[in-house]
Amino acid sequence: MRVAGSTATHDTGGYLGARSPRLKAARRLTKRAFRQRERAFLAEGPQAVAEAFHCGARVTDLFVTAPARSRHHDLVAEVDAGGIPVHVVNGEIMEELAQTVTPQGLLAVCGFVDVPLSEVTAGLSGTGRAQPGLVVLLANVRDPGNAGTVLRTADAAGAHAVVFADASVDPYNGKCVRASAGSLFHLPVVAAARLEEATSALRQVGLRIVAADGRAGRPLDDPGVQARLAGPTAWMFGNEAWGLPPELVALADEPVAVPIYGRAESLNLAAAAAVCLYASARAQRMPVDQG
Amino acid sequence: MRVAGSTATHDTGGYLGARSPRLKAARRLTKRAFRQRERAFLAEGPQAVAEAFHCGARVTDLFVTAPARSRHHDLVAEVDAGGIPVHVVNGEIMEELAQTVTPQGLLAVCGFVDVPLSEVTAGLSGTGRAQPGLVVLLANVRDPGNAGTVLRTADAAGAHAVVFADASVDPYNGKCVRASAGSLFHLPVVAAARLEEATSALRQVGLRIVAADGRAGRPLDDPGVQARLAGPTAWMFGNEAWGLPPELVALADEPVAVPIYGRAESLNLAAAAAVCLYASARAQRMPVDQG
Repeated sequence: MRVAGSTATHDTGGYLGARSPRLKAARRLTKRAFRQRERAFLAEGPQAVAEAFHCGARVTDLFVTAPARSRHHDLVAEVDAGGIPVHVVNGEIMEELAQTVTPQGLLAVCGFVDVPLSEVTAGLSGTGRAQPGLVVLLANVRDPGNAGTVLRTADAAGAHAVVFADASVDPYNGKCVRASAGSLFHLPVVAAARLEEATSALRQVGLRIVAADGRAGRPLDDPGVQARLAGPTAWMFGNEAWGLPPELVALADEPVAVPIYGRAESLNLAAAAAVCLYASARAQRMPVDQG
Repeated sequence: MRVAGSTATHDTGGYLGARSPRLKAARRLTKRAFRQRERAFLAEGPQAVAEAFHCGARVTDLFVTAPARSRHHDLVAEVDAGGIPVHVVNGEIMEELAQTVTPQGLLAVCGFVDVPLSEVTAGLSGTGRAQPGLVVLLANVRDPGNAGTVLRTADAAGAHAVVFADASVDPYNGKCVRASAGSLFHLPVVAAARLEEATSALRQVGLRIVAADGRAGRPLDDPGVQARLAGPTAWMFGNEAWGLPPELVALADEPVAVPIYGRAESLNLAAAAAVCLYASARAQRMPVDQG
């Protein structure tokens, strides 16, 4: 294993020193403006690192603490064998890079993985897919944990793409990457999209746009809604605090509410998205007459 | 409005001073051991305070910042008119009590609201309920945000009770209270239950125990599973990191997996719980032959 970037000045007994240029470059990627400029981001934890590496993301550096190097020996060896510089750092530096108090000791610098919207629509307009199209549109979702969880759920539900639109959080935000649990590397993600453009482009390739809106009159388990969900669908989810304002609901073909049977005022965004996306997955896979 | 507890020593121009005994008592409630001793906890934010007050929880003090007092004038006036001491505090003290960097400026001291398991089972064995019983069992769920979100989802899905069992987080943890978004005050919560006792007591009143287990062979949308979910059900959810170990799955009548259609390794606990609980809510309300 090489300890790249650790010159005599920075080398601190095999560890990458706090002032190493590689570390300095990585540290800058905790800020969105620098991520945009370098088109690179930080993926923390063994799961994210393994998924980045195995799913063909462009990994340019791996930072690892000594305990994590032992714990995840095979993964680190694999990355090293792939010609990617592996830097051993102390726990303090790892905490700073990972921006969490309990980092898992492994962190990769990855090139952006997002794709243009046109790539998603081209894929959806082709034939031969086993299931009708299923796409997630995030409209001004600000909380990175929520956005990452929805991305993970979209992946689990077999969605074809997730579009981060309008004022939504940066998909490369550390908390979003962590909450996605590797799913950022599994399915096409569109970053910085405009909602109006996205809805129109997806509609053109045959998707119905359904807005998840707690104020909608029609509930998710309405038989008509269920029947329509069997077809190609893009689900639009709004901000965690105020949902979808009327002008965004108007971009959809139909607003649908997850029914509230108890006394809760609403569902948390990630929970609502899970219910909606699994309703679609189920409707797209099951004959209409099965319960 | 009274500014109770602010004696000459502690009064700082209408504000409750940092050394006030009422504040000291409230501050201790950020620790579980003190909550247990006093059987009281802190509910932060206008939603939690309003729900506590309106749902009949024993509210003994309200702490409020001056801006929040203006913003939530009607609620504060209502609490005050109810004879509950209202204390004005500065933002720093509020941050410390609320244990968050962006507190909403309102925080109530509430008596515990949990009920014994026997009260839940007595309610479930009675007749006249519109829906079959639906109960959530949290088995070693450690993350307070996850537990609170599941509580909120359980409320939304019309569940009758949530049982915090074995090594699960304290339902009165500040983050759990906050994530529950008021649902802690909406439906019966059982704290510090033993899972083995709870499963056996719930089974005795006719509930089937279903374990949410990603490793289970039978998927949630299996027609047999769907048919069985129409009956009284208790869903068991395990730890966010390692799920349910075999000895806990063995306490259930049936393990069921939320199907993974994409490449995600698993679902986040709160997302999985949302899918399972809404599957139950739907199965309990719809004729079997509707899609």
